[in-house]
Amino acid sequence: MKLLRYGQKGTERQAVQAPSGDWVDATEFVAQRGGDYNEEFFSAGGVAGLREWMSSQSDLHPLDLAGVRIGAPIARPSKIIGVGLNYREHAAETGSDLPNEPKIFMKATTAMSGVFDDVVLPPGSESTDYEVELAVVIGRTATRVAAEQALESIAGFTICIDYSERDWQKNRSGQFVKGKSADTFAPLGPCLVTPDELRAEDVRLWLAVNGEPRQDSRTSEMIFGVSELVASISGYMTLLPGDVITTGTPTGVGLGLDPPQFLRAGDRLEFGIEGIGEGIQSVVASA
Amino acid sequence: MKLLRYGQKGTERQAVQAPSGDWVDATEFVAQRGGDYNEEFFSAGGVAGLREWMSSQSDLHPLDLAGVRIGAPIARPSKIIGVGLNYREHAAETGSDLPNEPKIFMKATTAMSGVFDDVVLPPGSESTDYEVELAVVIGRTATRVAAEQALESIAGFTICIDYSERDWQKNRSGQFVKGKSADTFAPLGPCLVTPDELRAEDVRLWLAVNGEPRQDSRTSEMIFGVSELVASISGYMTLLPGDVITTGTPTGVGLGLDPPQFLRAGDRLEFGIEGIGEGIQSVVASA
Repeated sequence: MKLLRYGQKGTERQAVQAPSGDWVDATEFVAQRGGDYNEEFFSAGGVAGLREWMSSQSDLHPLDLAGVRIGAPIARPSKIIGVGLNYREHAAETGSDLPNEPKIFMKATTAMSGVFDDVVLPPGSESTDYEVELAVVIGRTATRVAAEQALESIAGFTICIDYSERDWQKNRSGQFVKGKSADTFAPLGPCLVTPDELRAEDVRLWLAVNGEPRQDSRTSEMIFGVSELVASISGYMTLLPGDVITTGTPTGVGLGLDPPQFLRAGDRLEFGIEGIGEGIQSVVASA
Repeated sequence: MKLLRYGQKGTERQAVQAPSGDWVDATEFVAQRGGDYNEEFFSAGGVAGLREWMSSQSDLHPLDLAGVRIGAPIARPSKIIGVGLNYREHAAETGSDLPNEPKIFMKATTAMSGVFDDVVLPPGSESTDYEVELAVVIGRTATRVAAEQALESIAGFTICIDYSERDWQKNRSGQFVKGKSADTFAPLGPCLVTPDELRAEDVRLWLAVNGEPRQDSRTSEMIFGVSELVASISGYMTLLPGDVITTGTPTGVGLGLDPPQFLRAGDRLEFGIEGIGEGIQSVVASA
């Protein structure tokens, strides 16, 4: 099953994909279960409820989403955890050693947007970079779960572009969070795909800038797979329903090019993950 | 004015201190303004509204809080930002260079608790440590605010004990967040004090373990003051009403003792900040 949110930022409505492939508005159903695709919705078994609700409807009116903004597929979570250096060749291109266990950091949830929204270069940024990533959305509270049980904690998968200001990430008195948290630096979408519909351990992910292919890999190249990530991170903190783990990026980021090529206003990014969908973003200067 | 939340974790009620010194239940008033001391409450001018409401009441019934749990004084924020190495002597005791600008990291908001709750040693922890800190609660949305305007963005001040698992913070493939985010590692309280009632730039803060004084300093010893912190951090990300910045700890942490002395189950911590209040926590092993 696929879920998405559409409409203006901050007042998105909820939709679900019917077996016909049509998108159907689910806002009325969701209103009874947390009012959004949020912690309450996921913890109340909203995904299963939505599946049941959809199969009980005799006439579903297809939504016309042409020209409509697609938002992030979930409401603001309690946290977004990023994973660093989780693809061997990306670690090499950044000149870093391979981590012994998942290297994690946080992105501010205020950085969230949709995958067709503009990405805004913050004032003074000279080295904003892209990272296409498979993102995991947690479905139930997880504290110290075993890798074998980790899949049961997952509501679904989406795309995250983990935008990163490289100078701020590395050279401003430490800790990645500074370079990872500007507004618009965490677009998610276009939809949330439930685990029964995605072989997340081996799907293609790719990104192009101005039509030039930059990243093209498969999630099977991850050093720590999705289950290991959920198990490891939930050993350090409690993951809540709706929380996001963005699982790291493959080789091909702007920092790794010779010479490095960072994003400039006017650039256009296209990206996708097989089985989830695609996004297109324009880079704009800060207003 | 002072605000607090009382009652069982997750279902706290809201209270405010009357000019008489008595605590008064404000739950009914707050129900109209976000339902808790949260983003909606602060952004809707809830603090000023509460002040007005209190002065308009002809008979305020004092609450009897004896034996009642005191929770964190705010609902779960969008983020908790920690500041590292913000006191000169603490930087020295950890063997670190002084930062050129505020060194920041995040703590998971799932780590929140109250300052009379137990602190739970996570399984496998051998080096859990304390850090008493002045915490700032943001009152209005702040993106790239100037230091001169920063005070206008502040709703108030409280105490945060920035508990830290030192091995996880330093030796588990990088990034402080791993050692800062276990459940109960971010007690806040006992109350939120509005800026008009606290000379936050120069108050005493102290902490003792089992009656032995460990930390005793003044906020005037901070390298980067409250206004500089808000200005700097809001340059990297948007701060929302209700967000927390915990401003760093003075010398005297367990890591800095010779030999280091970390917390053990059965230890009892007492701590306070002049003008805000005090807290008492027991250290317990994970269930």
